[in-house]
Amino acid sequence: MNRQIILKSRPVGLPTAENFEIVVASSVTASNGELIVKAKFVSVDPYMRGRMSDAKSYVAPFELGKPIEGGVVAEVLESHHPDFKEGDVVLAPLKWQEIQAVSAEKITKLDKNNTHLSYYLGILGMPGLTAYFGLLDIGKPVSGETIVISGAAGAVGVVVGQIARIKGCRVVGISGSDEKNAYLSDELKFDEVINYRTTGSMRKAIEKACQDGVDIYFDNVGGEISDAVISQINQGARIIICGQISLYNETKMPVGPRLQAMLLKKRALMQGFIISDYYNRFPEGVKQLATWLGEGRLNSQETIVKGFEKLPEAFIGLFEGKNTGKSLVEIE
Amino acid sequence: MNRQIILKSRPVGLPTAENFEIVVASSVTASNGELIVKAKFVSVDPYMRGRMSDAKSYVAPFELGKPIEGGVVAEVLESHHPDFKEGDVVLAPLKWQEIQAVSAEKITKLDKNNTHLSYYLGILGMPGLTAYFGLLDIGKPVSGETIVISGAAGAVGVVVGQIARIKGCRVVGISGSDEKNAYLSDELKFDEVINYRTTGSMRKAIEKACQDGVDIYFDNVGGEISDAVISQINQGARIIICGQISLYNETKMPVGPRLQAMLLKKRALMQGFIISDYYNRFPEGVKQLATWLGEGRLNSQETIVKGFEKLPEAFIGLFEGKNTGKSLVEIE
Repeated sequence: MNRQIILKSRPVGLPTAENFEIVVASSVTASNGELIVKAKFVSVDPYMRGRMSDAKSYVAPFELGKPIEGGVVAEVLESHHPDFKEGDVVLAPLKWQEIQAVSAEKITKLDKNNTHLSYYLGILGMPGLTAYFGLLDIGKPVSGETIVISGAAGAVGVVVGQIARIKGCRVVGISGSDEKNAYLSDELKFDEVINYRTTGSMRKAIEKACQDGVDIYFDNVGGEISDAVISQINQGARIIICGQISLYNETKMPVGPRLQAMLLKKRALMQGFIISDYYNRFPEGVKQLATWLGEGRLNSQETIVKGFEKLPEAFIGLFEGKNTGKSLVEIE
Repeated sequence: MNRQIILKSRPVGLPTAENFEIVVASSVTASNGELIVKAKFVSVDPYMRGRMSDAKSYVAPFELGKPIEGGVVAEVLESHHPDFKEGDVVLAPLKWQEIQAVSAEKITKLDKNNTHLSYYLGILGMPGLTAYFGLLDIGKPVSGETIVISGAAGAVGVVVGQIARIKGCRVVGISGSDEKNAYLSDELKFDEVINYRTTGSMRKAIEKACQDGVDIYFDNVGGEISDAVISQINQGARIIICGQISLYNETKMPVGPRLQAMLLKKRALMQGFIISDYYNRFPEGVKQLATWLGEGRLNSQETIVKGFEKLPEAFIGLFEGKNTGKSLVEIE
């Protein structure tokens, strides 16, 4: 039996298990130029929430009754393309389906002797590249500067903080649990950590953690956490808008303090970006990330759940703060 | 009798005549290295409102009981510095005072045969340079793009629109009067104009005027006008935060839609800037502006009021939409 997971209904607010359905896929056949592949690691990412709504965004919405799609590491079962053979391991944007046919054009072959194939969905994949280009290209960190990262224990945040440390910055991470913060402090050597759920006043916590103000804010979360951070920016600050996970499940237009006067006063920059715009520079990013990883200057952190049927749960968990680092589902 | 205008009380909300007082200045004497000058043209600028509050900002607040200060074109009555002589015309940051002593170090000598000495406070001065660097350096206009300018009939806005036309952009100006808009359309050849006071829905007006969306937004105004413009930005849009005049008189933190999700979706940039940061590049800007002016590709527009005692009124008028182009007071 070959299972797939479809979008049964569009979430209103926080996604629930009822928005998804596991169904049996129709039989899989491959034509010339296609491969039949079996999913090994399936990525769950916050941006997918956007595709579950039908609002116009930078990627087309998922269709109702059709399978969810996302990044997958898969094994080739059958190849109808000369560049691939049975047993190859590949990275591709695929359906949430155990076994499927895919055009060879959409596929990247991976080194299957690499023991960490899942890294291609995390630190060497989209989240790692997001951290790399967002921080270096927009944030332009300078040694000695203070950077604040919201969603610091997420797939992107853990990489941003580590690269910022390599660049000599003072790193302040915000997450929603003491356990995550202990990991950020103890393992990743972040200079300061703040638990936004338990700190009394975010503004005071930021003031205390950033006594010289905030030079770079790498924002994955948005909302009131951002209000507190932005109130403390320095002249010439750079605010990188990478995600707004706290707002993805809002059902009406979120309101907050108008920021323009602050950006003006501080000559600050705020820039949204989407990693796919850096597509042509991915090889540069992967090479540097792999080098730092090999030198032990970067650590990978993953939250792996086993079982295809766990995909909706793992996805919903992203919005409940359940993962530390990259969240993945391993298919057995 | 030598008059000066002091800040009598800090405005709460819109400044009023009562916040100012005309007093008699103490006698003026110049030491070595100083000049005695007589004001000819005194600039009133929206940014001065910030200095009337005691909140920390990018320039120090004016002191209560002390004269207001700003850009002035003045004539030298007496020189104690070898580089200047009686009859020279100079540009300097000066007190709102008819006759005063000033250190030669703070002074730029102007070509007194130029019939348009007031231009050095407008199109060839701070507002012109603000338009030049803000638009070209941050906005990076590309021929065929659509730019929206709020406060389009103000000292900065009229220059931004004209430079954008030189660069081949489609220019949409927003102002608060049909008379100003007629000037923008008929004289400056803006492609579309919107009167924000009389249009029913700003959002619909922007949609109609910008059928291909907004690539650049040069914002002098902020508030709900900006909400409407930003709702229509294109991918890769640049939002230049030059001023927020609609909010300068607010007495509490203004609230509005959170913009980060839009900036993210559109990979858009929002950047605040202060013209003094471009100080080293002023000569480049003045040279280019003067060239365009000489070629008839730029027009200067000024609203000149006569009489030293009119300074508070001219300043307050900035917030009442009274000026078209650069607002100045000519001292007789």
